Amino acid sequence: MDKVLEKAQLKISEKDLKVSDMAETLVFSEIVKLANEINDKINSGERVFNLTIGDFNSHIFPIPDEFKDLIIKSYNHHDTNYPVAGGMPTLKSAISEFIKRKEGLDYKPSEITVASGARPLIFSTFNTLVNPGEKVLYPVPSWNNNHYTHISFAEHICVETRPENNFMPYASDIKPYIKDVALISLCSPLNPTGTVLTEENLREICDLILEENHIRISEGKKPVYLMFDQIYWVLTYGDIKHISPVSIYPEMKNFTIFIDGMSKYFAATGVRLGWSLAPASITDRFKTMIAHMGAWAPKAEQIAASHYLKDTENVDKYLEHFKDELSYRLNKFYEGLTKLKDKGFGIEVIPPQAAIYLTIKVDLIGKKKPDGCVISSSQDTTRYLINEAKMGVVPFYAFGSPETSQWFRLSVGTVKRDEIDECVGNLESALSRLQ
Amino acid sequence: MDKVLEKAQLKISEKDLKVSDMAETLVFSEIVKLANEINDKINSGERVFNLTIGDFNSHIFPIPDEFKDLIIKSYNHHDTNYPVAGGMPTLKSAISEFIKRKEGLDYKPSEITVASGARPLIFSTFNTLVNPGEKVLYPVPSWNNNHYTHISFAEHICVETRPENNFMPYASDIKPYIKDVALISLCSPLNPTGTVLTEENLREICDLILEENHIRISEGKKPVYLMFDQIYWVLTYGDIKHISPVSIYPEMKNFTIFIDGMSKYFAATGVRLGWSLAPASITDRFKTMIAHMGAWAPKAEQIAASHYLKDTENVDKYLEHFKDELSYRLNKFYEGLTKLKDKGFGIEVIPPQAAIYLTIKVDLIGKKKPDGCVISSSQDTTRYLINEAKMGVVPFYAFGSPETSQWFRLSVGTVKRDEIDECVGNLESALSRLQ
Repeated sequence: MDKVLEKAQLKISEKDLKVSDMAETLVFSEIVKLANEINDKINSGERVFNLTIGDFNSHIFPIPDEFKDLIIKSYNHHDTNYPVAGGMPTLKSAISEFIKRKEGLDYKPSEITVASGARPLIFSTFNTLVNPGEKVLYPVPSWNNNHYTHISFAEHICVETRPENNFMPYASDIKPYIKDVALISLCSPLNPTGTVLTEENLREICDLILEENHIRISEGKKPVYLMFDQIYWVLTYGDIKHISPVSIYPEMKNFTIFIDGMSKYFAATGVRLGWSLAPASITDRFKTMIAHMGAWAPKAEQIAASHYLKDTENVDKYLEHFKDELSYRLNKFYEGLTKLKDKGFGIEVIPPQAAIYLTIKVDLIGKKKPDGCVISSSQDTTRYLINEAKMGVVPFYAFGSPETSQWFRLSVGTVKRDEIDECVGNLESALSRLQ
Repeated sequence: MDKVLEKAQLKISEKDLKVSDMAETLVFSEIVKLANEINDKINSGERVFNLTIGDFNSHIFPIPDEFKDLIIKSYNHHDTNYPVAGGMPTLKSAISEFIKRKEGLDYKPSEITVASGARPLIFSTFNTLVNPGEKVLYPVPSWNNNHYTHISFAEHICVETRPENNFMPYASDIKPYIKDVALISLCSPLNPTGTVLTEENLREICDLILEENHIRISEGKKPVYLMFDQIYWVLTYGDIKHISPVSIYPEMKNFTIFIDGMSKYFAATGVRLGWSLAPASITDRFKTMIAHMGAWAPKAEQIAASHYLKDTENVDKYLEHFKDELSYRLNKFYEGLTKLKDKGFGIEVIPPQAAIYLTIKVDLIGKKKPDGCVISSSQDTTRYLINEAKMGVVPFYAFGSPETSQWFRLSVGTVKRDEIDECVGNLESALSRLQ
């Protein structure tokens, strides 16, 4: 015991509590860090528009009333013990019908995995399909592919996209690497840009994948898989159509993992209900991985969703209204910011196509602030926008773009219709104060 | 396009859709497989008692009414957007108060991570603290340590425990490996046995860990961590007391990760709300990992729990009743099975101490069934019990014990008080038919 008492006096500091190499270098979401910083300002009484987070103000954008009532009903029915691993069978049937009706895709319940949001299924896709040391290709800017690649001990192949292409990757960007990659991760509509892949563009990428897999399978090798994150797919505006690899080539179903869920198009980010569509044998692996992760959607919410998704009339009514509201905000910002561009404020804006995001360029490098300091980085710009324009947006370097990028993601999920003029006005005023 | 059409005709079979080596060899829960098999029988009209699953019949054991009402209130308040990463601050405060009041442990909100159940935090403990190739030590039988070690590419050191020690590991079992291990995983009360570590036993294990870490830290090495899964800690019966490493040596707080949550002692397995207690710097890593995993507890449930856990009167009332009900069942089974033992049926039972489990030995090896076949393995025994005794229990090989083990886990979470006599009677009758 004396020895133990002596040990008890050993002074332990945080740096002594070493963690795994992967965890040591794993980065927390830069977006959440920024959002927290802005929320601190808001909580201390400042009026700042937090347009950073890919989320909703739930008082402006509540989940559908009928869905909420079904969750309550489910709790009153004591749906509180373990859900079935991989998802409640009734929910998987309802998802199957929903994606058939709305997207035209044929997926059986045995090809669907339900989880506590889309992220666990992205995590599972990487863990299940990529060996440590294998290569994952993803375009930048894009959301969190860098982190998932890191967690799965894989190698990164980042393809930088260009604003003139709506920040979308092309087959020609991927072709040099196709022989080497285990997984290609695409997202359309894209977080952070709110733009979509065109059919021609996606078709050429699928051609590459099919051609490569023809060879790999004939050689008995693991195919290259395509993770297709379409969590925002319902939210397209105007003439913009969402297209998917499987709608172009049914054969792509063998190699495609769709990531989808209720989080975004039903404003249900806190309800924790996502799903994947994938070949049955891979779905079976996902069920195992999700079970060990414990990343199950809560049972009451699963049962509620299984009824709600079949309530086609209310689903369609909700989505129509929801899309109108989002589209109004995106276009209102687009118009306002285009006026600032026309006034010569160094602004660019990509016309909104989808999701809840607007892509804007705010190039203030070299401008002198009222305090005499010169803006010399996108971090400086971010700070200036928060402090002077009272507007939080996320610089693209948080999505893997180079630190020199002057592009930003603006999210409209937390803003009221009548706040947009004020917000653009604040920006104009702040930009006017620069020299 | 012709080439693509040709590719379209390539016949793809499931075996072509290869997965990662880890996923290929990752095993789904044997318990859930068995439970599904029994549920199929029940659904087809057979009367079988499913005592396999570590879960509750939510009509016999609902979650606390006040907790349910608070969840409903939270949904009516639109608590449906993203929760704060790592857990809602009000919930972390409530957990801090709850564990101080009930267990006497001092943990600040900054030392608490909330997730969608206990499993995501077990997963995070392995990922965050163990490098691929490092060694994890765990006793067998135990729950899922084999799978978590596999997922984290770690090496297994299994310590087989003995029935005469209530299947608990001793410091002497661990000592030969202490120099080599990155993580020791203990669980008390133990799933599958329903038995607890004694203070003396745990103290000696902590002595080993402190002594080893004194050396490691002085050499700048990563310490050996102790994951202490205490998800059943509230559920101890009679004179049995739950003890923890940190209550024995406050210094152990530096190296201990507690796994805990509402799933078991509030019968809330489907609500998905667990937490860890760990040093702040490690908690910060867990927050990052849980965020990337998307294994967040739903927001409405988090806010509801933050109020419920502070309702000390109702919490204590619920737990008192809940423990009475579980204790009655465990003791009733213990008495019934002890009678069978006394009648010479080859049964052994360990007196129940905690959790929702009873540990029984049913050694039927070499006995001849009415159909003339001889029982030659614990799998045969499992099947005989299901088919002839109408009783599903889990063989210890599902918890990592050798296949030759004739020990089983019997769970009382789905059985009514007045069904136990019938269940024991069925067993006696089935055993009587053996020669």
